[in-house]
Amino acid sequence: MNGDWDLTPDVSRKQRLGFDETIFCASKTPDQINRLLEMALEAEEPLLLTRLDREKILALSSELSGHLDYDEVSHTAILGRVPIPEDTPRVAIVSGGSSDVRVAREAARTLQYYRVGVREIYDVGIAGLWRLLEHVDELRDMRIVITVAGMEGTLPSVVAGLVPGLVIAVPVATGYGVAANGITALNSALASCAPGLVVVNVDNGYGAGCAALRMLNVMQRHSLHG
Amino acid sequence: MNGDWDLTPDVSRKQRLGFDETIFCASKTPDQINRLLEMALEAEEPLLLTRLDREKILALSSELSGHLDYDEVSHTAILGRVPIPEDTPRVAIVSGGSSDVRVAREAARTLQYYRVGVREIYDVGIAGLWRLLEHVDELRDMRIVITVAGMEGTLPSVVAGLVPGLVIAVPVATGYGVAANGITALNSALASCAPGLVVVNVDNGYGAGCAALRMLNVMQRHSLHG
Amino acid sequence: MNGDWDLTPDVSRKQRLGFDETIFCASKTPDQINRLLEMALEAEEPLLLTRLDREKILALSSELSGHLDYDEVSHTAILGRVPIPEDTPRVAIVSGGSSDVRVAREAARTLQYYRVGVREIYDVGIAGLWRLLEHVDELRDMRIVITVAGMEGTLPSVVAGLVPGLVIAVPVATGYGVAANGITALNSALASCAPGLVVVNVDNGYGAGCAALRMLNVMQRHSLHG
Amino acid sequence: MNGDWDLTPDVSRKQRLGFDETIFCASKTPDQINRLLEMALEAEEPLLLTRLDREKILALSSELSGHLDYDEVSHTAILGRVPIPEDTPRVAIVSGGSSDVRVAREAARTLQYYRVGVREIYDVGIAGLWRLLEHVDELRDMRIVITVAGMEGTLPSVVAGLVPGLVIAVPVATGYGVAANGITALNSALASCAPGLVVVNVDNGYGAGCAALRMLNVMQRHSLHG
Amino acid sequence: MNGDWDLTPDVSRKQRLGFDETIFCASKTPDQINRLLEMALEAEEPLLLTRLDREKILALSSELSGHLDYDEVSHTAILGRVPIPEDTPRVAIVSGGSSDVRVAREAARTLQYYRVGVREIYDVGIAGLWRLLEHVDELRDMRIVITVAGMEGTLPSVVAGLVPGLVIAVPVATGYGVAANGITALNSALASCAPGLVVVNVDNGYGAGCAALRMLNVMQRHSLHG
Amino acid sequence: MNGDWDLTPDVSRKQRLGFDETIFCASKTPDQINRLLEMALEAEEPLLLTRLDREKILALSSELSGHLDYDEVSHTAILGRVPIPEDTPRVAIVSGGSSDVRVAREAARTLQYYRVGVREIYDVGIAGLWRLLEHVDELRDMRIVITVAGMEGTLPSVVAGLVPGLVIAVPVATGYGVAANGITALNSALASCAPGLVVVNVDNGYGAGCAALRMLNVMQRHSLHG
Amino acid sequence: MNGDWDLTPDVSRKQRLGFDETIFCASKTPDQINRLLEMALEAEEPLLLTRLDREKILALSSELSGHLDYDEVSHTAILGRVPIPEDTPRVAIVSGGSSDVRVAREAARTLQYYRVGVREIYDVGIAGLWRLLEHVDELRDMRIVITVAGMEGTLPSVVAGLVPGLVIAVPVATGYGVAANGITALNSALASCAPGLVVVNVDNGYGAGCAALRMLNVMQRHSLHG
Amino acid sequence: MNGDWDLTPDVSRKQRLGFDETIFCASKTPDQINRLLEMALEAEEPLLLTRLDREKILALSSELSGHLDYDEVSHTAILGRVPIPEDTPRVAIVSGGSSDVRVAREAARTLQYYRVGVREIYDVGIAGLWRLLEHVDELRDMRIVITVAGMEGTLPSVVAGLVPGLVIAVPVATGYGVAANGITALNSALASCAPGLVVVNVDNGYGAGCAALRMLNVMQRHSLHG
Repeated sequence: MNGDWDLTPDVSRKQRLGFDETIFCASKTPDQINRLLEMALEAEEPLLLTRLDREKILALSSELSGHLDYDEVSHTAILGRVPIPEDTPRVAIVSGGSSDVRVAREAARTLQYYRVGVREIYDVGIAGLWRLLEHVDELRDMRIVITVAGMEGTLPSVVAGLVPGLVIAVPVATGYGVAANGITALNSALASCAPGLVVVNVDNGYGAGCAALRMLNVMQRHSLHG
Repeated sequence: MNGDWDLTPDVSRKQRLGFDETIFCASKTPDQINRLLEMALEAEEPLLLTRLDREKILALSSELSGHLDYDEVSHTAILGRVPIPEDTPRVAIVSGGSSDVRVAREAARTLQYYRVGVREIYDVGIAGLWRLLEHVDELRDMRIVITVAGMEGTLPSVVAGLVPGLVIAVPVATGYGVAANGITALNSALASCAPGLVVVNVDNGYGAGCAALRMLNVMQRHSLHG
Repeated sequence: MNGDWDLTPDVSRKQRLGFDETIFCASKTPDQINRLLEMALEAEEPLLLTRLDREKILALSSELSGHLDYDEVSHTAILGRVPIPEDTPRVAIVSGGSSDVRVAREAARTLQYYRVGVREIYDVGIAGLWRLLEHVDELRDMRIVITVAGMEGTLPSVVAGLVPGLVIAVPVATGYGVAANGITALNSALASCAPGLVVVNVDNGYGAGCAALRMLNVMQRHSLHG
Repeated sequence: MNGDWDLTPDVSRKQRLGFDETIFCASKTPDQINRLLEMALEAEEPLLLTRLDREKILALSSELSGHLDYDEVSHTAILGRVPIPEDTPRVAIVSGGSSDVRVAREAARTLQYYRVGVREIYDVGIAGLWRLLEHVDELRDMRIVITVAGMEGTLPSVVAGLVPGLVIAVPVATGYGVAANGITALNSALASCAPGLVVVNVDNGYGAGCAALRMLNVMQRHSLHG
Repeated sequence: MNGDWDLTPDVSRKQRLGFDETIFCASKTPDQINRLLEMALEAEEPLLLTRLDREKILALSSELSGHLDYDEVSHTAILGRVPIPEDTPRVAIVSGGSSDVRVAREAARTLQYYRVGVREIYDVGIAGLWRLLEHVDELRDMRIVITVAGMEGTLPSVVAGLVPGLVIAVPVATGYGVAANGITALNSALASCAPGLVVVNVDNGYGAGCAALRMLNVMQRHSLHG
Repeated sequence: MNGDWDLTPDVSRKQRLGFDETIFCASKTPDQINRLLEMALEAEEPLLLTRLDREKILALSSELSGHLDYDEVSHTAILGRVPIPEDTPRVAIVSGGSSDVRVAREAARTLQYYRVGVREIYDVGIAGLWRLLEHVDELRDMRIVITVAGMEGTLPSVVAGLVPGLVIAVPVATGYGVAANGITALNSALASCAPGLVVVNVDNGYGAGCAALRMLNVMQRHSLHG
Repeated sequence: MNGDWDLTPDVSRKQRLGFDETIFCASKTPDQINRLLEMALEAEEPLLLTRLDREKILALSSELSGHLDYDEVSHTAILGRVPIPEDTPRVAIVSGGSSDVRVAREAARTLQYYRVGVREIYDVGIAGLWRLLEHVDELRDMRIVITVAGMEGTLPSVVAGLVPGLVIAVPVATGYGVAANGITALNSALASCAPGLVVVNVDNGYGAGCAALRMLNVMQRHSLHG
Repeated sequence: MNGDWDLTPDVSRKQRLGFDETIFCASKTPDQINRLLEMALEAEEPLLLTRLDREKILALSSELSGHLDYDEVSHTAILGRVPIPEDTPRVAIVSGGSSDVRVAREAARTLQYYRVGVREIYDVGIAGLWRLLEHVDELRDMRIVITVAGMEGTLPSVVAGLVPGLVIAVPVATGYGVAANGITALNSALASCAPGLVVVNVDNGYGAGCAALRMLNVMQRHSLHG
């Protein structure tokens, strides 16, 4: 009886929503992940894994983990041929401090898995505003800007006041005191006076990537009649 | 010195972000609103006003308020010719209980102001799931679905699991006990297991409308090259 | 004086409430648990132990722990002959993600200890709603449905809108950001628009099992006169 | 466009869940309630209305409100012939202070609407424990005990330790300081060391009534085979 | 015994801290305020009153209130000759939306009471960043910049990254949803990545003014030896 | 400069408040504790140490720790001759579950240090109320009853409704979900409907002991004139 | 059925706990209070009423309210001959700002009802510390000091560090921003570094008075043997 | 792709704000810190590092860490010649308990890095008020007093009522129960009744140092004209 429940993946997700089920490894045992990798290898299907930390990847069957392209920063892995993104980036990912990068990269890897071109602009926190302002023209050309920010979470509001595309805020659980769990950055984005800023859960780089995909997929489908 | 500060509207917003500054009336005195209406009438520019409740509209100069198209449900007003929306709706607005309608209508009026066609589907709460399932095909054709929900806020998660377009959740401050201020509905949407759901502040129908506009504007600009 | 307090179990609980005192191991030292096991073995009484994690079971006297039937997933142990449940399940336990199983199993083992037949249906999260809808008829026949859900906790509300039996929600502390400690799932269940949904504490699979037992015991006693 | 949305009641609720849709008046305008009353009168169907405060009942069409049996304490109204409850009570409702009665009565009226016999025992707060202990034998005979308590919410835990039936806690938003919004009473019930206590939202007397109905309906259906 | 307690003002505050005791009217009855005004008039001493709303000033003895210079926006009053501020402003007060002005003006009036020159720059919210950037040179010359911001509270962090003087953040209780009580703006300022930003309580314009005074007084005393 | 700050104990505390300064070890390094022990040994003064966990006592100089009487359950140590308590207990300490004992014992040891006779009654939680009721007569004779309770914290309210002496509630950080950090037990005690119940911080057994001492010292001083 | 529940006062409270049941009027209707007053008048028993605001006393039967000694500041009323307190105060009540007086007076009136001599020292807030220090000698002679403080709640900690008697903190819901609901003052008292400070709920002057009574009653009973 | 992002320090910070960018090590990997140290050594520029705990300094390249002056208490390091502070202190740092020293020292080291003379006065908690009062004259001569306090955070309010200079409160995350994460100390400082007290984030000694620097820099620039 111990732990061998049937895993019933959401097989129709691709056709329903436009993207595959992704393996959120934080809540799975190595055994469960091993089994999911085997199923995917057998079916010759690619797979994205998130929240796969170093201890857990070492606990996987090495035969299976050898098939993974692992990104240490974002704790993501891709099974199968790593897709080559399109040439021109349609999404920018912007972040402030060094601890935001792990979340920013989770969004980037999610989009890379679907071949979307991404422009990553890190270390442009608001404390030195000139660093962001140098990139405004570039950002104004993007369809989507994903802003990743911990601490007080100023970056999304400033960006959303400067660029016309869809701006998605990803709060980050970084800092200390009132900033410790990311709720301050979250609430700051939600309460933003910049109109039309949308928000996902704290640390949810994957969710921001999926939201961008939803929009890009819609654009693809409706590209002829806008 | 009493209260006559210069009002310096964000005049370049249209060209920067693609939409006009909107008057958030909840934090303005009738005098301030009168002045802004005069400025807009002189410049022969349309104007959207939100959170204009019944007491405040009665406190405006009747000469000015006579120019307003007022919607009692959403507490919004439009100055100038009320735009006629396009024929085919590109955005659906879905809500559950009767107290969500005031917020849903705020989003609808915001989009109407920019001539966007909107399909409003109200009273389809999850407690009677069949009511929502009857609309799934229609919702799958929309570019954007704005889901408006108070109480436990189940609706956005269910919709985001069923349709491929961009799904925006607007939590509503309704109910009592743990639901009273909308934070439960907010957190429910943020924590959703449905991938790519994005969220705005509690009661922020206007913000959801603006996010939809950002996406539709991008689609317009990029309609030829996907 | 160090740690050897008299343990005075609630000996009349069985006759008062209809079920035995259970050992909640999270707040007990291995020595205390050893003593309780000895007392039960001497009295030739069965015993249910909950929240007995792996480190703690290894710290018990191996002579005593050898008498335990241990379930790794739910961290429960049964002392004495493991009861064989009745043939026809009267309670269903439904859960969404893989991290909910440890809590769902705690409820299942609690009921199994009292020989109640349980139908376990896992991995039917709302993000792929079709998985739940396939089981609706089966669920409608149950006297009680225990729904176990972390993240945004949508599952209990949806189930309670579909089935007529008593529906008990067990929120789970899983996920991250606003979902981290299970309070979002808890509040979502409490604020549910589905009428008559009842709730227990976060992660309290044991409590949900006991509530089900209370109802089944009442039914047993009153089975002749409804 | 102002406020005349179609109302689409959950018509299959009776057959799906075993009870009618009830009108939660707190989030409805008098016009909306008037329309719902008209629809019910035409269909010659009974109707339960909750959270109908004095101002709102006075704002209804007096022709329609004349058909209502109104209970000032619980702010509930029943349209149609008021049901006569069964002789022997199967549910007890127990509360402590005088401000809990409005919520206790909401549960009582919900059950009365479905003809369930209810035993109401009020003013038996824990500060004078003897008052509750005098009723223990009576309470032990009930299928269900609904405990209604504000302040620190001790009552549900004490009752659940004394009686074998299903015990439902309804926290009440009464008191001041840390007790003001009912969350202390809610958390106290959720964290109870008494096994199998189940909980509904703050002030949700209606929800507790519905949970009791779910259990009684199951008993009715399964009365022959326990 | 009813309400006539002796009032014992903190008479040595001026010499200890460098400023007078101020009357915080929100927690005082009109009678108490009347008595304090009489005492000040008799002693021929000036007095600053804060949080004196319109109802309360009308409830004062009109003979006494006739001596007050009242500012409707900030709800402050000055008894005695209104001081003429110095020519060159040493403190700037910067705010975003229209609802921040009442708090900004409380700080301004506090400083005016002590003859400090103040430069008020309102309506320069971050959603239209160009409005603030136009004032950067002016702000860099100030000894102190008081930033007043509600909603998400971005303004203080941006200003503190641009100017070298002491920057004091005053969060404002404005907006709705997560912004409603000013805690989001407060936490945003506290968690700021801009170094050396200091913060006062929500809506505490008076406190920000006093902090500025502490610094200016120190500068006065130590002006010869820096 | 590394860590060798002068320690300036509050030397007049005994004469001012009636009890010695106690060493709260949780926030001190082993070096700091070593120094304080040396100072006390030199001065031939007794000393009470709290929150001294096992790792830390092992990190002390063994020469110094050899002088300590250590209680593993409460993590307290007494330097010097362990006082023999008076014969007749004047304070009772009552607790529910097994995880409350560590806090109950901290109170007991604090009182023992001052020779106060203590009656310890553990494992009398409310879920089996009869266990407490058996002790009511004994408790009614006590000057002070310290109630120690985690989870939902019912015990203090029930005791305070049964006995006339001073009742002090010590909430305990035990349990899970809404009970995890002791705030539910704390708020339950603060909101108690039993009149005159007083409360100390979560887990603060030492504080409860000191409050009892304050009262006993006053009684000693005033024993002749009531 | 409307609102005429039997009122079953806790008749044995006097003999059990040493004081009468008191009428907490905030949660009672005028009718309920009228009936309780009639019962007390008939029985020729005195009665203390708390939280009886001006509107409610005007809504009572004037014949009954004419028997009340009403205190406008504390919203308390005494039915029957107002007791004359003993000559020498045994309890001091100390408070800071003017808005604390309503709570301080509730404690004072509670004690007065039982003839306890009280020394009231108001307006001695910490911002002007000299005002408190002037009273230290007087306070050191008291058996009990009740400290009443809103805002940041510093007063209880400072007093508890200066006097040896039992110190009871009553937090007050005054101020704004983080101080608005009294929780900051409450937590400040609970977390105090001054040993043996005990705390009651926000605004609970009555509870502080009862705690003092418990201690004084014990002293009375045990005055001969300390 | 793994983790080698360009680091783009805020190079104009010195000239814009008057102080260097500091390396907040808590969110950086050893590799990132190594690279920043190399860059600074090459450029022959000094550098301040904060939140560099013992494990992390051991994980640095020993060649590089050999250049650091490390303070174990505050977890700060200075690269380059350690500055010799000016003779006469202009800033005092005052703290209460032993666990506040780590934060107090972070402020001290920040100021030392800029050669500011600092007077450190530790272990003067409010529980023994005489210890603080002995230093009042000295503190009144300081331009700035940084108060560092955990637990209930009384110290800042008391100091701000006694001295005329700028008083900055740094709350500390110490203690347990309601004090555990420093929010009680934070709110206590924000709600202070002492006028003009300013606050920084919990544990933010560095921020308090920077705020002091802002003020001292302004004084330097404006020393001739007050």
